Order: sequence, then C-alpha cells, then structure tokens
Amino acid sequence: MHECHREIAHWLARLEVEVRIDAAGNFRALYPATNPNSPRLLIGSHLDTVANAGSYDGILGVVLAVALLEELQGRRFPFAIEVVGFSEEEGVRFGIPFIGSRALVGRLDEDLLNTQDPQGISIRRAIEAFHLNPNEISQAKLPNDTVASIEFHIEQGPVLEQLNQPLAAVQAIVGQSRLEFAFLGRSNHAGATPMYLRQDALAGAAEWICIVERMALTVPGLVATVGKIEAKPGATNVIASEVRCSLDVRHANDEVRILAVQKLIHGAEEIASRRKLSVKENTLLSQPAVAMDPFLTSEIEKAIVRAGCKSHRMISGAGHDAMILAEKVPAAMIFLRTPRGVSHDPAETVMIEDVERAITCGLHLFDQLAASPEFLKRTTLA
Amino acid sequence: MHECHREIAHWLARLEVEVRIDAAGNFRALYPATNPNSPRLLIGSHLDTVANAGSYDGILGVVLAVALLEELQGRRFPFAIEVVGFSEEEGVRFGIPFIGSRALVGRLDEDLLNTQDPQGISIRRAIEAFHLNPNEISQAKLPNDTVASIEFHIEQGPVLEQLNQPLAAVQAIVGQSRLEFAFLGRSNHAGATPMYLRQDALAGAAEWICIVERMALTVPGLVATVGKIEAKPGATNVIASEVRCSLDVRHANDEVRILAVQKLIHGAEEIASRRKLSVKENTLLSQPAVAMDPFLTSEIEKAIVRAGCKSHRMISGAGHDAMILAEKVPAAMIFLRTPRGVSHDPAETVMIEDVERAITCGLHLFDQLAASPEFLKRTTLA
Repeated sequence: MHECHREIAHWLARLEVEVRIDAAGNFRALYPATNPNSPRLLIGSHLDTVANAGSYDGILGVVLAVALLEELQGRRFPFAIEVVGFSEEEGVRFGIPFIGSRALVGRLDEDLLNTQDPQGISIRRAIEAFHLNPNEISQAKLPNDTVASIEFHIEQGPVLEQLNQPLAAVQAIVGQSRLEFAFLGRSNHAGATPMYLRQDALAGAAEWICIVERMALTVPGLVATVGKIEAKPGATNVIASEVRCSLDVRHANDEVRILAVQKLIHGAEEIASRRKLSVKENTLLSQPAVAMDPFLTSEIEKAIVRAGCKSHRMISGAGHDAMILAEKVPAAMIFLRTPRGVSHDPAETVMIEDVERAITCGLHLFDQLAASPEFLKRTTLA
Repeated sequence: MHECHREIAHWLARLEVEVRIDAAGNFRALYPATNPNSPRLLIGSHLDTVANAGSYDGILGVVLAVALLEELQGRRFPFAIEVVGFSEEEGVRFGIPFIGSRALVGRLDEDLLNTQDPQGISIRRAIEAFHLNPNEISQAKLPNDTVASIEFHIEQGPVLEQLNQPLAAVQAIVGQSRLEFAFLGRSNHAGATPMYLRQDALAGAAEWICIVERMALTVPGLVATVGKIEAKPGATNVIASEVRCSLDVRHANDEVRILAVQKLIHGAEEIASRRKLSVKENTLLSQPAVAMDPFLTSEIEKAIVRAGCKSHRMISGAGHDAMILAEKVPAAMIFLRTPRGVSHDPAETVMIEDVERAITCGLHLFDQLAASPEFLKRTTLA
C-alpha cells in the first residue's frame, strides 16, 4: 500500500496538489479551487482489494479521479477537488469493511480500533505499523467545507452489459441482511435408515434453499443468496445431522427486505418442524438502504447524456464507501459497465471506451456543478 | 488389536479351542466337532471399528460367538464351530473395507496388498509390522470343510426398535451405488447480480437434492442420501460457482437401484441445462445386492421364534463381512435391535435382554442345524 500511495503521488506530482496520507491510511490529494475559501468536492474510491481479485474494483475510481485532474490542464473551479483513495473498504483483514471511509465520517472509534485481525493485531497496532498515528484519526474527518462526494466504480454485475450501456447513475445502495442458519437433525447410517425415519438436515436445508431462490425470483428487485454451506459429519454414507448455511438478502426498500427475511425464517421453521429438525438463525448484519443525493444523481445523468451515452439509473447491489459518506455529505456514484459482470476475480475487466466515456462524463459533471446555481448555493451554505 | 486378540484368547482359554491369528490378522478359534472329520460352521463378525465409534458394531458378534461356546459347557455337535474375529471390515485405514473377510474368500491379492494408507504404508507392510507374514495369506482361506457362516450384528438402524422386536433374520444385503456430482455455474456478486442473470451452482444442487429425496420416498425399499456437500468459493456474498456432492443409493434389487441412479443423473442434467449450469458425475462404486442363504435364514427365523421373539425378516442396508463370505459359502445374519438406530457413535448401544435373546437364539440354531437332515446332508456334501 505504501508503494501504491507513492505511485499515485508520483502521477499527481506534475499537478499543483497537496498530498497527505491521513491517520486511517486514506490517500488524500487536494486540487485547489479558483479561490482559497471555496468549498470542496470529494472524488475517489478505495485502493484495497480482496485476495485473488481483479484490477478495477475500487482502484479504477481513484485512477479516474487522477485522470480527471490531469484532463483539467490547470483549469480550476469554484470548488476544490479532493481525490481520496480509501483504505480497507473490503474488510479482508479485520472482517470489518469501510474502515477508511468510517474515519471520514467520525466513526473509526476506540472499539473499532481495538478490533483484531486473525493474528491478534488490532487496527490501532496495524496503523502504527504502517507508520501512522492512530491518535490523529480525528484529523481524517471530512473538513466542514466538503459539499459533495462522487465515486466512480465498476458495476460488478451484468446489468449494464445486458442493457448495452457503458455508464449509469446510482440512485441508491441496497439495504442488506446477512444471516446464518443451522439446521439440526440426526446423523444415521445412509443404508440402514429407511427414508421415513430420517431427520436429514441436508434434505431440509436443500428444500429451504429452493424457497430462498423462489422468493427472490418473485419479489421485484429482491436478491437472496445462499453462498456458503457446510454439512456435518459430511460423509457419503452418513445422513447429515447438521447443516450451516448463509443467507444474504438485499433490496432498495428496507421494508421489503425485512419482510423477505422474516418469511425466509418462517419458511425454515416450517420445514424444520415438518421434518422433525430444529433450526436456529443468527442475524449478523441488517444494514438499511442508502439513497444517493437526488440532485447529484440527476446531474450525473445529464453528464452521462452529454458524454454521448443513454441515461440510466440503477440500484447498487453492493455496498460502497459512498454509502458511509452519505451519512455526512451529499454523495453520488457512477457505475461503469463490467464485462460479464465478473468481479472479485482476476478476469475482472473494463472496456477502454467506457473509461474514456467516464472521464468525459466526469469533466461535464465538473462544468455542470460549477455552472449550477443550485450547487453553488449549496456550497455557500456549507 | 494385539491386546484385543489376547483378551478374547484369554476368555476362550477355559474351553477346548485352538486359537490362531491368520496372516490377514483375523482372529480364529476352532471348537471341535463330535468327531474329527466333521465339517465346520463359521460364526463371528469384525473386531475393528471406526473412529469415535460405539462399542458394539462388529465386536458384539465376536463376543456373542464366544458366549455361545461358553454356554455349550463342553457340548459338541456334528460340526466344528470356528469363531472368527475379522480384521479391517470398516476400511478406515486403507479406504478399502472387508480386508479380513476378503482373505477368507481368496481375494486379498497382490494388488490389494500394495494398497497404501495415507502415510504410504502398504497393507503388506502393515501386516509385517503386526508380526504376521503376508506370504501366508493363502492359509487364511476358508477351509474346504466350511459349510455355513453365521454373523450376529447390531442393526445400525431404527427399524427393529420401531417394530418393537429384538431380533431379525437378514434375507439380503442391499446393492449400493456411490457417485460424486459436480454442478458448475458462475460465481458472481450476490448483491450486484439480478436473480434472472445467475448461474448459481448451489441453487441447482439444492433442487437436485430435493429430487433425490423425493425419488427415494416414492420407490419402496429405496434409500438415497446426499451426505456430503461442498460449495465454492463458499462466501456469504458470492454466488457459488461449483458444488460437489455425494450420492449414496441402495436397494435389495439391483435393477431398481441402477434405474434410480440413471434417473437421478438425468434429473441433474435436466436441472443443469435449465439453469445454464453444467454437471459431471463420477461413479465410485456399484456393488450388487447379495442374498443370504434361504435355508439358513429360515432356520434363523425358527430359532428367533424359539427364543420367544416374533419372527421378522429384513434387508440389511449396510455392507457386512457376510456379503463377502457369501461368494464362497452359504452365509446368513441375525440383527439385534439398535436403540434409536444410533451407530458409528459413542452413544451406540444394545439392550442386555436382546443380547440374552440372541444367545438363546444362537443355541437353538446350533441344535436345529445339528438335527436338520438338510443341513447334515449339506455337510456331507461339503
């Protein structure tokens, strides 16, 4: 990550920007406004990624921000532009995502700093090992003059490719529930136990997984996934006594999501009771949907059209730093088409033409905001 | 196992028996007949067991045979009785079951002797390490005077308990197919991929597991089990790209079993094709059903009734040494009720009254065979 920061700082060296790494390990570069007391627009994404990942999830949004500053060729706006490369968005090391952006909204607190990685190293100690001072975390907070935050990111899904459109404005980030279910039956000999005397935890879990899929197929906009399953004792000739599986449910409307989760819990209980199994569920996450700023989203749509593309609005099915920033500042996102929807995989890619269109769109967006009485009014309010 | 052999030999020391350990590690003790040139009846089961097992699977059948000799109080029959404690029935160490009984039917050949355990030690070297001579394996073969083989074993299933009966005669051991299925789809983001664009390998496998269960519930006597499942990449927020699961199918009629397996393969292919998945299956085992000897089975039923129990015939859903011996000699089995059907588990148990009834049944069986013109005719034929 030190090398990554050095590389981006090197690209920015030709431009008149002030680079710093905040105490949460976020890369931050400030491109000044036409005059010193102007507000600031944040633009960026995250620099970390998952293991065995692609090259675009996150970092493309930072590189795009740098490319936009380069394209300006010294031109300035009535707002400063702060390029941010967030740290630890994916949550790989500590199991907690959005650590960098949490610092910007003042939520990287003592409890979070004490969270340990699997080796027992706390976030606090990891920050120190990175030669930063965790006691300066508060200096990572969004400055009061921040008035908007824009994030370019790959879609990580197949929707734009299916629609044959390069770019989309994100109108909301879905709410998400994560649960773990344990179906408990009785292990027994797969040959000596007749079907009618079985309490087969895997047969029960399989019936439930079918219900999960059927519900998501019938409720518009709902996605529900069982991605993880473990059966014990896990032998060919033994009926499974215990199956643990995950449930991931997302929807832009929190009520729809919460109702779906309740129905799936009831479904699991009904299956368990009919099959003489027991079922326990544990809610690991229930995160509300986050709307993006309507004004910024509408301006993004205009900029997409001005970049020669069709306007499209969509819901993000994945969480993003923009979701965290939206707690404190109007935030918006632009998605880039992701070939075959492949992400978190070395085959993840983007089309060069789409990146060109995204840069054009970004430049139009800057111009629109600089010329918008509504945005400029906002900035004076900040 | 040395200690186990010593202990059983110690119990038998008071009786006039000749004890030897054959080159396959089987414990063998010969209780002589009324006169020297009489045929022999084998009685026994296996002495090995699985890890974290109970105390009765196998060894009860050996201890019962010893108890029967003790109960005779020196009384002899027109047949010798050879007590056998088979080695390596479970196949824990080498992945191959019935090693001891294979030696009795002449099937512990060079290929098998070269089979290695996970540490790279061959059966041949393991036999040497046990202070036996693998070159003497042929001396483990069933002597030509052997005319019948009887095995007492716990049922390992819940059927006798459900019927409230202590003992049953086994009329056949089911045939068994073991397969491995791999459903292949495409992994993708659980939030960003709409339901209609998914190729979810776990949703496909779950639908198939439901079909497996439904088929077994509708075909009388069929059992079909998916006991093992693995989903990759196996993350809460990632659609599974690959699911591997086992299939275990058993039936007393080989045609029924083979047809069921074919239908389940077609079912998997239909599901895969509808869901844009691919599926591959691999047959690991296809073992025909083995009938027990009808005459012995009918005599066992009579002996069960004379022991004060109701007569019952059943199919064994598990494989047993009797299945191997049946290749060369008329073989039969008696099942003992297994509380809650629990086996291969420390909670495995038997009821003392049932063991008493089994001993009574065994004594009646000896008397019946000694008095049976048909059996004695057989023995002269041997």
